[in-house]
Amino acid sequence: MFRNHDVVIDQDRLWSRLMALGEIGATGTGGVNRQALTDGEHAAWKTMVEWGRQAGLHASTDEAANLFLTLPGTQPELLPVMAGSHLDSQPTGGKFDGAYGVVAALEAAAALVDCGVKPLRDIVIVAWMNEEGSRFAPGMMGSEAFAGVRSIADIRQTIDSAGISVGHEIDRIHRAFSKLGTYPLGFDVATYLELHIEQNTELEEANKIIGVVSGIQGKKTFEVCIHGTKGHAGTVAMSDRRDAVLAFARIAHVLHQELEALDADVKFTIGRVETLPNAPSVIPEEVRFRVDLRHPDNQVLEACGEKVVKLCTELAVPCEAVVTPLMSAPSNRFDPTLQDHIRSAAEHREFSYMDVLSYAGHDARHMAPLCPSAMIFIPCKDGISHDEREWIEPQHASAGAQVLLDVLVVASTSS
Amino acid sequence: MFRNHDVVIDQDRLWSRLMALGEIGATGTGGVNRQALTDGEHAAWKTMVEWGRQAGLHASTDEAANLFLTLPGTQPELLPVMAGSHLDSQPTGGKFDGAYGVVAALEAAAALVDCGVKPLRDIVIVAWMNEEGSRFAPGMMGSEAFAGVRSIADIRQTIDSAGISVGHEIDRIHRAFSKLGTYPLGFDVATYLELHIEQNTELEEANKIIGVVSGIQGKKTFEVCIHGTKGHAGTVAMSDRRDAVLAFARIAHVLHQELEALDADVKFTIGRVETLPNAPSVIPEEVRFRVDLRHPDNQVLEACGEKVVKLCTELAVPCEAVVTPLMSAPSNRFDPTLQDHIRSAAEHREFSYMDVLSYAGHDARHMAPLCPSAMIFIPCKDGISHDEREWIEPQHASAGAQVLLDVLVVASTSS
Repeated sequence: MFRNHDVVIDQDRLWSRLMALGEIGATGTGGVNRQALTDGEHAAWKTMVEWGRQAGLHASTDEAANLFLTLPGTQPELLPVMAGSHLDSQPTGGKFDGAYGVVAALEAAAALVDCGVKPLRDIVIVAWMNEEGSRFAPGMMGSEAFAGVRSIADIRQTIDSAGISVGHEIDRIHRAFSKLGTYPLGFDVATYLELHIEQNTELEEANKIIGVVSGIQGKKTFEVCIHGTKGHAGTVAMSDRRDAVLAFARIAHVLHQELEALDADVKFTIGRVETLPNAPSVIPEEVRFRVDLRHPDNQVLEACGEKVVKLCTELAVPCEAVVTPLMSAPSNRFDPTLQDHIRSAAEHREFSYMDVLSYAGHDARHMAPLCPSAMIFIPCKDGISHDEREWIEPQHASAGAQVLLDVLVVASTSS
Repeated sequence: MFRNHDVVIDQDRLWSRLMALGEIGATGTGGVNRQALTDGEHAAWKTMVEWGRQAGLHASTDEAANLFLTLPGTQPELLPVMAGSHLDSQPTGGKFDGAYGVVAALEAAAALVDCGVKPLRDIVIVAWMNEEGSRFAPGMMGSEAFAGVRSIADIRQTIDSAGISVGHEIDRIHRAFSKLGTYPLGFDVATYLELHIEQNTELEEANKIIGVVSGIQGKKTFEVCIHGTKGHAGTVAMSDRRDAVLAFARIAHVLHQELEALDADVKFTIGRVETLPNAPSVIPEEVRFRVDLRHPDNQVLEACGEKVVKLCTELAVPCEAVVTPLMSAPSNRFDPTLQDHIRSAAEHREFSYMDVLSYAGHDARHMAPLCPSAMIFIPCKDGISHDEREWIEPQHASAGAQVLLDVLVVASTSS
């Protein structure tokens, strides 16, 4: 199966390019602030396009400002094989979340070129637009637009905290890269592969190098707005109050207890809470908060979602709660054949490996319904991610990239 | 006792001056934004000084930028009688909170002048600096400095959200009013009277016009900071989390239940809540919130304060809570003789009256330990205050001012 065991990743170049990319939007304290469609992402595009050009890859974009670097295959009538991740980061993110998957895919393609191997199929390296969703929420906009999960018209209207729209910023990056080719939104793909840091400690704790990702746990998010009545903290009797903060506390506390009782594996987070008017001596009239639910089992996830709606509504009294579902992504299973290819590659390269579940969401979630898709994980130190301390070992970086390369060879050389 | 029943308030002038003062810093939608030591308060000072001058009152200030308008008595060796309130407002405050007490006191002095009545004692109208505490927190700075509760050096260092200090703004208003006389900080006073809107519904519900204020309930405030650990909402197991928002919810919910069980009359408010990093998919690492406790009984208030410290500390686990007491003002009782004078005046004028407790704090809290002090309340519509909809009836305004005038006559004509 692996006729090209001599095709190997240039480990030093992979690492030096990861470090070089980490300088773009560097926070100065080890991390990266390179949010979607900012000048920092423009600079990252410029670097990727140039590295691609050096390897003979041509650069293109689409309506959603996804970036593609294509290594042409010998049989262009076959559907392309795609691999990549994203270049945007959290405001105080790390060097590897997303960027590793894009740079490693480019290095895999470059390794083929360097060894003179011609794939049958086009190999398309992708950097999806706005995976993180920190500047423009929610994230995964590029892959959602590509997969038709969300309309590009809708996505373009999203604004950041300064009032700037995604549409404005897509147009801006397209103007800045006006010489790029254009791909249609959502073109057909034969296979999708995404290499990523684990953002968890399962690999590290089991002392394994390669994670064969079985699937991504399901996710549901809600926005809840509790409406109460403003009043003077000194004068209004407790029995006459409609205190939105106390309603919030009741909801969050009871919801936590009931969800844990329902299923110990559920993950329940209220990450954003906003209080109005937020003055020390004024009874709060409004609390707006986000609920983030995750579970690998779709039935359990559905039951948890129903509990959120029910308990928010019931426990808000005497306030009123308005619960708005924001997103609902069922858990998915990645392609078994591709998972086998990953296991075989790890075995042939003598990298330890194990099956893991992805607890974080990835763009691969949206590709999986379109074509056989898979993800490869490598360990990240202490499971820390979305943080400037995020770290991976150079030998793990090259191991992951090598496995990606080996699976890409199989996928791109079969007709 | 009331030898001067012919000394009456000019009802029309009182009302027209209240309306005129309400134009200074008007929000355009019925309310007032005239925060402490702003240009709006400069303009209010200018108006008050001019109205005082027309009645023969001379204007002075002190180190704390309190404004005094003095009607000289015939026996200046006697201690003065003081009456007033404050001219500053909340950002979206009403026309009457504070301003009513200052304008009515000025009208009471002017009524004496108009009728040719000479008090034995000086009558000093006061407008205390920064009662509201919205621009510079906490409030009641002028009366605290006057009463020696807080040092003027400490007060001067407080900064607003733009970084401007109270000291800078005191110096600025003193420069703008450089011709005013100077009073020493905390001069001796024989009697203090404060007329104010009730900011509650007791008078309105009982259909009474005059509130004889028995005292001000005690108040304690705390800042609580919960320290947790940041993490990815999708990957960290619930059992491994130190989620600051869930700790906050547990604390707020249980504290509410336990305080209500301790005493049904306690007032418990968490008006300000701040979450870090406040991102939808990040486990919150910090929640910072304010607790506001009020109760008329100091023993109960102490017990409630102890519960706040104990429960915050215990219930924060596995997070950690740091509880910082900010202020502790015990409840006080106003002078019984002055309360009798208020009742007698209301009875003679045939205004309905009743005893009420003040649930809001007032500058009179700090004058009560210095000299016999009292407060008079009039109804405010629906109890709404700290709000642009704040409203009083003109006949209630003149009734309150008349009672203040009658009590001032007694206090200023006795040696």
